[in-house]
Amino acid sequence: MSSSSPLLAELIDALRCLPGVGAKSAQRMAFHLLERERERGLKLAGVLEQAMQRIGNCSRCRNFSEEPVCALCASSSRDRHVLCVVESPTDLAAVEQATGYRGQYFVLLGRLSPLDGLGPRELGLHLLTERLAEGEVEELILATSPTVEGEATSHYLVQLARAGGVKATRLAHGVPLGGELEYVDRGTLAHAFGSRQSVE
Amino acid sequence: MSSSSPLLAELIDALRCLPGVGAKSAQRMAFHLLERERERGLKLAGVLEQAMQRIGNCSRCRNFSEEPVCALCASSSRDRHVLCVVESPTDLAAVEQATGYRGQYFVLLGRLSPLDGLGPRELGLHLLTERLAEGEVEELILATSPTVEGEATSHYLVQLARAGGVKATRLAHGVPLGGELEYVDRGTLAHAFGSRQSVE
Repeated sequence: MSSSSPLLAELIDALRCLPGVGAKSAQRMAFHLLERERERGLKLAGVLEQAMQRIGNCSRCRNFSEEPVCALCASSSRDRHVLCVVESPTDLAAVEQATGYRGQYFVLLGRLSPLDGLGPRELGLHLLTERLAEGEVEELILATSPTVEGEATSHYLVQLARAGGVKATRLAHGVPLGGELEYVDRGTLAHAFGSRQSVE
Repeated sequence: MSSSSPLLAELIDALRCLPGVGAKSAQRMAFHLLERERERGLKLAGVLEQAMQRIGNCSRCRNFSEEPVCALCASSSRDRHVLCVVESPTDLAAVEQATGYRGQYFVLLGRLSPLDGLGPRELGLHLLTERLAEGEVEELILATSPTVEGEATSHYLVQLARAGGVKATRLAHGVPLGGELEYVDRGTLAHAFGSRQSVE
Protein backbone atom coordinates (compact mmCIF):
# COMPACT_ATOMS: atom_id res chain seq x y z
CA MET A 1 0.00 0.00 0.00
CA SER A 2 2.85 2.34 0.78
CA SER A 3 3.47 2.88 -2.90
CA SER A 4 -0.09 4.00 -3.57
CA SER A 5 -0.60 6.63 -0.85
CA PRO A 6 2.19 7.88 1.42
CA LEU A 7 -0.34 9.60 3.69
CA LEU A 8 -2.26 6.35 4.16
CA ALA A 9 0.98 4.54 5.01
CA GLU A 10 1.74 7.29 7.53
CA LEU A 11 -1.72 6.94 9.09
CA ILE A 12 -1.31 3.16 9.43
CA ASP A 13 2.07 3.70 11.07
CA ALA A 14 0.75 6.39 13.44
CA LEU A 15 -2.15 4.18 14.56
CA ARG A 16 0.38 1.70 15.93
CA CYS A 17 0.99 3.96 18.93
CA LEU A 18 -2.30 2.59 20.32
CA PRO A 19 -1.79 -0.32 22.75
CA GLY A 20 -2.51 -3.75 21.25
CA VAL A 21 -2.59 -2.43 17.69
CA GLY A 22 -0.16 -4.07 15.27
CA ALA A 23 0.40 -3.59 11.56
CA LYS A 24 -2.66 -5.62 10.56
CA SER A 25 -5.15 -3.96 12.93
CA ALA A 26 -3.74 -0.53 12.12
CA GLN A 27 -4.37 -1.17 8.42
CA ARG A 28 -7.89 -2.36 9.17
CA MET A 29 -8.57 0.74 11.28
CA ALA A 30 -7.25 3.11 8.62
CA PHE A 31 -9.34 1.53 5.85
CA HIS A 32 -12.41 1.44 8.07
CA LEU A 33 -12.13 5.14 8.90
CA LEU A 34 -11.49 6.11 5.28
CA GLU A 35 -14.26 3.97 3.86
CA ARG A 36 -16.99 4.50 6.40
CA GLU A 37 -16.22 6.88 9.26
CA ARG A 38 -14.59 10.04 7.92
CA GLU A 39 -16.70 12.30 10.11
CA ARG A 40 -15.97 10.43 13.31
CA GLY A 41 -12.31 10.02 12.32
CA LEU A 42 -12.02 13.78 11.96
CA LYS A 43 -13.76 14.23 15.29
CA LEU A 44 -11.32 11.78 16.90
CA ALA A 45 -8.38 13.73 15.46
CA GLY A 46 -9.68 16.95 17.02
CA VAL A 47 -10.47 15.48 20.43
CA LEU A 48 -7.16 13.59 20.50
CA GLU A 49 -5.18 16.76 19.82
CA GLN A 50 -7.09 18.67 22.50
CA ALA A 51 -6.68 15.86 25.02
CA MET A 52 -2.95 15.39 24.43
CA GLN A 53 -2.34 19.11 24.80
CA ARG A 54 -4.77 20.13 27.52
CA ILE A 55 -5.10 17.19 29.92
CA GLY A 56 -2.65 17.58 32.78
CA ASN A 57 -2.84 16.49 36.39
CA CYS A 58 -5.09 17.84 39.11
CA SER A 59 -3.00 19.88 41.57
CA ARG A 60 -4.85 18.30 44.48
CA CYS A 61 -5.21 14.58 43.67
CA ARG A 62 -2.86 14.23 40.63
CA ASN A 63 -5.58 12.51 38.58
CA PHE A 64 -5.91 13.44 34.89
CA SER A 65 -7.73 16.73 34.51
CA GLU A 66 -7.86 19.63 32.09
CA GLU A 67 -8.66 21.99 34.98
CA PRO A 68 -6.17 22.96 37.72
CA VAL A 69 -8.43 21.15 40.20
CA CYS A 70 -10.40 18.17 38.87
CA ALA A 71 -14.16 17.81 39.10
CA LEU A 72 -13.85 15.00 41.67
CA CYS A 73 -11.81 17.20 44.03
CA ALA A 74 -13.99 20.24 43.44
CA SER A 75 -17.24 18.33 43.93
CA SER A 76 -19.17 19.21 47.06
CA SER A 77 -21.02 15.89 47.01
CA ARG A 78 -17.88 13.81 47.68
CA ASP A 79 -16.99 12.98 51.27
CA ARG A 80 -13.83 14.92 52.22
CA HIS A 81 -13.18 12.79 55.29
CA VAL A 82 -12.17 9.68 53.34
CA LEU A 83 -9.20 9.60 50.97
CA CYS A 84 -8.44 6.59 48.76
CA VAL A 85 -4.85 6.27 47.51
CA VAL A 86 -4.43 4.51 44.14
CA GLU A 87 -1.41 3.98 41.92
CA SER A 88 -2.82 5.21 38.62
CA PRO A 89 -5.81 6.93 37.00
CA THR A 90 -6.74 3.50 35.60
CA ASP A 91 -6.99 2.13 39.14
CA LEU A 92 -9.06 5.16 40.13
CA ALA A 93 -11.43 4.42 37.24
CA ALA A 94 -11.68 0.77 38.32
CA VAL A 95 -12.56 1.70 41.93
CA GLU A 96 -14.97 4.36 40.73
CA GLN A 97 -16.75 1.95 38.38
CA ALA A 98 -16.87 -1.07 40.69
CA THR A 99 -17.59 0.37 44.10
CA GLY A 100 -20.03 2.86 45.56
CA TYR A 101 -17.16 4.87 47.03
CA ARG A 102 -18.13 8.53 47.48
CA GLY A 103 -14.95 9.89 49.06
CA GLN A 104 -11.97 11.53 47.39
CA TYR A 105 -8.81 10.15 45.79
CA PHE A 106 -5.10 10.62 45.67
CA VAL A 107 -3.23 9.25 42.65
CA LEU A 108 0.43 8.29 43.11
CA LEU A 109 1.17 7.96 39.36
CA GLY A 110 3.51 5.07 40.16
CA ARG A 111 4.73 3.13 43.18
CA LEU A 112 7.83 3.39 45.32
CA SER A 113 10.68 1.96 43.28
CA PRO A 114 14.03 3.56 44.18
CA LEU A 115 15.86 1.61 41.45
CA ASP A 116 13.65 3.31 38.83
CA GLY A 117 14.15 6.68 40.50
CA LEU A 118 10.64 6.71 41.95
CA GLY A 119 10.87 8.03 45.49
CA PRO A 120 8.34 9.74 47.79
CA ARG A 121 8.87 13.04 45.95
CA GLU A 122 8.00 11.56 42.53
CA LEU A 123 4.82 10.04 43.97
CA GLY A 124 3.80 13.47 45.29
CA LEU A 125 3.81 12.27 48.87
CA HIS A 126 4.61 15.80 50.06
CA LEU A 127 1.21 16.79 48.63
CA LEU A 128 -0.39 13.91 50.48
CA THR A 129 1.35 14.93 53.73
CA GLU A 130 0.02 18.48 53.32
CA ARG A 131 -3.41 17.11 52.65
CA LEU A 132 -3.38 15.00 55.81
CA ALA A 133 -2.07 18.00 57.77
CA GLU A 134 -5.16 19.97 56.73
CA GLY A 135 -6.94 17.80 59.28
CA GLU A 136 -10.01 17.07 57.14
CA VAL A 137 -9.13 13.46 56.25
CA GLU A 138 -10.14 10.88 58.85
CA GLU A 139 -9.53 7.64 56.94
CA LEU A 140 -6.83 6.87 54.38
CA ILE A 141 -7.81 3.87 52.23
CA LEU A 142 -4.76 2.16 50.75
CA ALA A 143 -5.68 0.70 47.37
CA THR A 144 -2.21 0.04 45.99
CA SER A 145 -1.58 -3.15 44.01
CA PRO A 146 -0.82 -6.34 45.96
CA THR A 147 2.68 -6.58 44.43
CA VAL A 148 6.00 -6.27 46.25
CA GLU A 149 6.40 -2.61 45.26
CA GLY A 150 2.74 -1.88 45.92
CA GLU A 151 3.06 -3.39 49.40
CA ALA A 152 6.20 -1.37 50.10
CA THR A 153 4.36 1.77 49.02
CA SER A 154 1.43 0.83 51.20
CA HIS A 155 3.77 0.29 54.17
CA TYR A 156 5.27 3.76 53.64
CA LEU A 157 1.80 5.28 53.45
CA VAL A 158 0.83 3.65 56.75
CA GLN A 159 3.76 5.47 58.42
CA LEU A 160 2.59 8.70 56.83
CA ALA A 161 -0.95 8.20 58.10
CA ARG A 162 0.31 7.37 61.57
CA ALA A 163 2.46 10.51 61.63
CA GLY A 164 -0.57 12.53 60.61
CA GLY A 165 -2.79 10.85 63.18
CA VAL A 166 -5.10 9.45 60.48
CA LYS A 167 -6.64 5.97 60.47
CA ALA A 168 -5.29 3.82 57.61
CA THR A 169 -7.21 0.91 56.06
CA ARG A 170 -6.27 -1.52 53.28
CA LEU A 171 -8.36 -3.32 50.68
CA ALA A 172 -9.15 -6.87 51.81
CA HIS A 173 -7.01 -9.54 50.17
CA GLY A 174 -8.15 -13.12 49.64
CA VAL A 175 -9.85 -15.52 47.27
CA PRO A 176 -11.56 -13.59 44.43
CA LEU A 177 -15.34 -14.00 44.14
CA GLY A 178 -16.65 -16.30 41.44
CA GLY A 179 -13.39 -18.23 41.02
CA GLU A 180 -12.68 -21.93 41.56
CA LEU A 181 -10.55 -22.58 44.65
CA GLU A 182 -8.30 -24.99 42.74
CA TYR A 183 -7.23 -22.26 40.32
CA VAL A 184 -6.40 -19.65 42.96
CA ASP A 185 -2.63 -19.11 43.16
CA ARG A 186 -0.79 -20.47 46.21
CA GLY A 187 0.19 -17.12 47.70
CA THR A 188 -3.39 -15.84 47.63
CA LEU A 189 -4.76 -19.11 49.04
CA ALA A 190 -2.17 -19.15 51.86
CA HIS A 191 -3.02 -15.53 52.68
CA ALA A 192 -6.77 -16.18 52.60
CA PHE A 193 -6.34 -19.26 54.78
CA GLY A 194 -4.23 -17.38 57.31
CA SER A 195 -6.63 -14.43 57.40
CA ARG A 196 -9.76 -16.57 57.76
CA GLN A 197 -12.62 -14.81 59.52
CA SER A 198 -15.15 -16.09 61.99
CA VAL A 199 -18.67 -16.67 60.71
CA GLU A 200 -21.64 -15.57 62.81
CA MET B 1 -14.18 8.78 35.00
CA SER B 2 -16.63 11.05 33.26
CA SER B 3 -17.02 13.12 36.39
CA SER B 4 -13.29 13.78 36.72
CA SER B 5 -12.39 14.99 33.20
CA PRO B 6 -14.99 15.70 30.51
CA LEU B 7 -12.27 15.86 27.84
CA LEU B 8 -10.97 12.42 28.81
CA ALA B 9 -14.51 11.03 28.64
CA GLU B 10 -14.87 12.60 25.19
CA LEU B 11 -11.58 11.05 24.04
CA ILE B 12 -12.65 7.60 25.25
CA ASP B 13 -15.94 8.00 23.41
CA ALA B 14 -14.26 9.23 20.21
CA LEU B 15 -11.84 6.27 20.17
CA ARG B 16 -14.81 3.94 19.83
CA CYS B 17 -15.12 4.85 16.14
CA LEU B 18 -12.20 2.48 15.57
CA PRO B 19 -13.29 -1.02 14.52
CA GLY B 20 -13.14 -3.63 17.28
CA VAL B 21 -12.69 -1.02 20.01
CA GLY B 22 -15.29 -1.08 22.78
CA ALA B 23 -15.63 0.97 25.96
CA LYS B 24 -12.95 -1.00 27.83
CA SER B 25 -10.28 -0.90 25.08
CA ALA B 26 -11.02 2.76 24.38
CA GLN B 27 -10.38 3.58 28.03
CA ARG B 28 -7.15 1.57 27.97
CA MET B 29 -6.01 3.39 24.83
CA ALA B 30 -6.80 6.83 26.24
CA PHE B 31 -4.92 6.16 29.50
CA HIS B 32 -1.99 4.64 27.63
CA LEU B 33 -1.64 7.68 25.37
CA LEU B 34 -1.97 10.14 28.26
CA GLU B 35 0.44 8.30 30.52
CA ARG B 36 3.12 7.25 28.09
CA GLU B 37 2.67 8.39 24.49
CA ARG B 38 1.65 12.05 24.38
CA GLU B 39 4.06 12.82 21.54
CA ARG B 40 2.89 9.97 19.35
CA GLY B 41 -0.72 10.65 20.28
CA LEU B 42 -0.34 14.21 19.08
CA LYS B 43 1.32 12.96 15.90
CA LEU B 44 -1.56 10.55 15.34
CA ALA B 45 -4.05 13.40 15.75
CA GLY B 46 -2.26 15.42 13.07
CA VAL B 47 -1.88 12.57 10.58
CA LEU B 48 -5.46 11.44 11.16
CA GLU B 49 -6.83 14.90 10.44
CA GLN B 50 -4.72 15.20 7.29
CA ALA B 51 -5.71 11.73 6.10
CA MET B 52 -9.45 12.21 6.70
CA GLN B 53 -9.41 15.52 4.84
CA ARG B 54 -6.98 14.89 2.03
CA ILE B 55 -7.25 11.23 1.03
CA GLY B 56 -9.72 10.86 -1.80
CA ASN B 57 -9.91 8.40 -4.65
CA CYS B 58 -7.59 8.11 -7.63
CA SER B 59 -9.42 9.33 -10.75
CA ARG B 60 -8.03 6.40 -12.73
CA CYS B 61 -8.27 3.33 -10.47
CA ARG B 62 -10.48 4.65 -7.63
CA ASN B 63 -8.02 3.45 -4.99
CA PHE B 64 -7.34 5.72 -1.98
CA SER B 65 -4.96 8.51 -2.90
CA GLU B 66 -4.21 12.06 -1.84
CA GLU B 67 -3.16 12.88 -5.43
CA PRO B 68 -5.58 13.09 -8.40
CA VAL B 69 -3.79 10.05 -9.87
CA CYS B 70 -2.30 7.57 -7.40
CA ALA B 71 1.32 6.46 -7.37
CA LEU B 72 0.40 2.96 -8.61
CA CYS B 73 -1.35 4.36 -11.69
CA ALA B 74 1.35 6.95 -12.34
CA SER B 75 4.19 4.44 -11.91
CA SER B 76 6.08 3.63 -15.10
CA SER B 77 7.33 0.33 -13.66
CA ARG B 78 3.85 -1.24 -13.50
CA ASP B 79 2.65 -3.26 -16.48
CA ARG B 80 -0.17 -1.33 -18.22
CA HIS B 81 -1.33 -4.37 -20.16
CA VAL B 82 -2.78 -6.20 -17.17
CA LEU B 83 -5.60 -4.80 -15.04
CA CYS B 84 -6.75 -6.48 -11.84
CA VAL B 85 -10.28 -5.63 -10.65
CA VAL B 86 -10.82 -5.78 -6.88
CA GLU B 87 -13.77 -4.82 -4.70
CA SER B 88 -12.00 -2.64 -2.14
CA PRO B 89 -8.69 -0.98 -1.27
CA THR B 90 -8.29 -3.66 1.42
CA ASP B 91 -8.47 -6.36 -1.27
CA LEU B 92 -5.94 -4.42 -3.35
CA ALA B 93 -3.60 -4.34 -0.35
CA ALA B 94 -4.05 -8.10 0.14
CA VAL B 95 -3.21 -8.88 -3.51
CA GLU B 96 -0.29 -6.45 -3.41
CA GLN B 97 1.15 -7.98 -0.25
CA ALA B 98 0.62 -11.65 -1.14
CA THR B 99 1.41 -11.85 -4.84
CA GLY B 100 4.18 -10.62 -7.08
CA TYR B 101 1.63 -8.89 -9.34
CA ARG B 102 3.20 -5.97 -11.19
CA GLY B 103 0.23 -4.80 -13.28
CA GLN B 104 -2.34 -2.12 -12.48
CA TYR B 105 -5.60 -2.15 -10.55
CA PHE B 106 -9.18 -1.01 -10.73
CA VAL B 107 -11.10 -0.69 -7.45
CA LEU B 108 -14.89 -1.07 -7.58
CA LEU B 109 -15.50 0.24 -4.04
CA GLY B 110 -18.34 -2.25 -3.68
CA ARG B 111 -20.03 -4.99 -5.66
CA LEU B 112 -23.14 -5.06 -7.80
CA SER B 113 -26.09 -5.02 -5.44
CA PRO B 114 -29.14 -3.34 -6.98
CA LEU B 115 -31.14 -3.67 -3.74
CA ASP B 116 -28.56 -1.48 -1.97
CA GLY B 117 -28.55 0.98 -4.85
CA LEU B 118 -25.16 -0.23 -6.11
CA GLY B 119 -25.34 -0.42 -9.89
CA PRO B 120 -22.67 -0.26 -12.64
CA ARG B 121 -22.54 3.54 -12.32
CA GLU B 122 -21.74 3.42 -8.57
CA LEU B 123 -18.95 0.92 -9.19
CA GLY B 124 -17.42 3.27 -11.74
CA LEU B 125 -17.81 0.76 -14.55
CA HIS B 126 -18.06 3.62 -17.07
CA LEU B 127 -14.48 4.47 -16.08
CA LEU B 128 -13.50 0.85 -16.57
CA THR B 129 -15.19 0.78 -19.99
CA GLU B 130 -13.26 3.90 -21.02
CA ARG B 131 -10.07 2.33 -19.75
CA LEU B 132 -10.62 -0.83 -21.80
CA ALA B 133 -11.50 1.31 -24.84
CA GLU B 134 -8.06 2.95 -24.60
CA GLY B 135 -6.79 -0.35 -26.01
CA GLU B 136 -3.80 -0.70 -23.69
CA VAL B 137 -5.25 -3.42 -21.44
CA GLU B 138 -4.83 -6.97 -22.74
CA GLU B 139 -5.92 -8.99 -19.73
CA LEU B 140 -8.57 -8.19 -17.15
CA ILE B 141 -8.00 -10.20 -13.94
CA LEU B 142 -11.23 -10.59 -11.97
CA ALA B 143 -10.42 -10.72 -8.26
CA THR B 144 -13.88 -10.13 -6.82
CA SER B 145 -14.96 -12.09 -3.75
CA PRO B 146 -16.34 -15.60 -4.26
CA THR B 147 -19.75 -14.57 -2.86
CA VAL B 148 -23.05 -14.44 -4.72
CA GLU B 149 -22.76 -10.69 -5.30
CA GLY B 150 -19.07 -10.94 -6.11
CA GLU B 151 -19.82 -13.64 -8.70
CA ALA B 152 -22.59 -11.53 -10.23
CA THR B 153 -20.19 -8.61 -10.45
CA SER B 154 -17.57 -10.85 -12.01
CA HIS B 155 -20.12 -12.10 -14.55
CA TYR B 156 -20.96 -8.52 -15.49
CA LEU B 157 -17.28 -7.68 -15.87
CA VAL B 158 -16.77 -10.65 -18.20
CA GLN B 159 -19.42 -9.15 -20.52
CA LEU B 160 -17.64 -5.81 -20.34
CA ALA B 161 -14.30 -7.42 -21.22
CA ARG B 162 -15.86 -9.33 -24.09
CA ALA B 163 -17.44 -6.14 -25.47
CA GLY B 164 -14.05 -4.46 -25.26
CA GLY B 165 -12.28 -7.39 -26.90
CA VAL B 166 -10.14 -7.99 -23.81
CA LYS B 167 -9.22 -11.39 -22.35
CA ALA B 168 -10.78 -11.94 -18.92
CA THR B 169 -9.31 -14.27 -16.26
CA ARG B 170 -10.50 -15.18 -12.79
CA LEU B 171 -8.66 -16.13 -9.61
CA ALA B 172 -8.57 -19.93 -9.21
CA HIS B 173 -11.07 -21.29 -6.72
CA GLY B 174 -10.56 -24.51 -4.79
CA VAL B 175 -9.16 -26.04 -1.63
CA PRO B 176 -7.01 -23.50 0.27
CA LEU B 177 -3.36 -24.41 0.80
CA GLY B 178 -2.34 -25.67 4.23
CA GLY B 179 -5.86 -26.68 5.30
CA GLU B 180 -7.22 -30.09 6.22
CA LEU B 181 -9.55 -31.52 3.59
CA GLU B 182 -12.10 -32.55 6.22
CA TYR B 183 -12.56 -28.95 7.34
CA VAL B 184 -13.06 -27.48 3.86
CA ASP B 185 -16.67 -26.38 3.40
CA ARG B 186 -18.88 -28.47 1.10
CA GLY B 187 -19.31 -25.85 -1.61
CA THR B 188 -15.58 -25.33 -1.99
CA LEU B 189 -14.87 -29.06 -1.96
CA ALA B 190 -17.56 -29.74 -4.59
CA HIS B 191 -16.15 -26.95 -6.77
CA ALA B 192 -12.57 -28.18 -6.34
CA PHE B 193 -13.65 -31.74 -7.16
CA GLY B 194 -15.52 -30.65 -10.25
CA SER B 195 -12.65 -28.44 -11.45
CA ARG B 196 -9.97 -31.09 -10.88
CA GLN B 197 -6.96 -30.71 -13.12
CA SER B 198 -4.84 -33.34 -14.85
CA VAL B 199 -1.42 -34.01 -13.39
CA GLU B 200 1.55 -34.42 -15.69
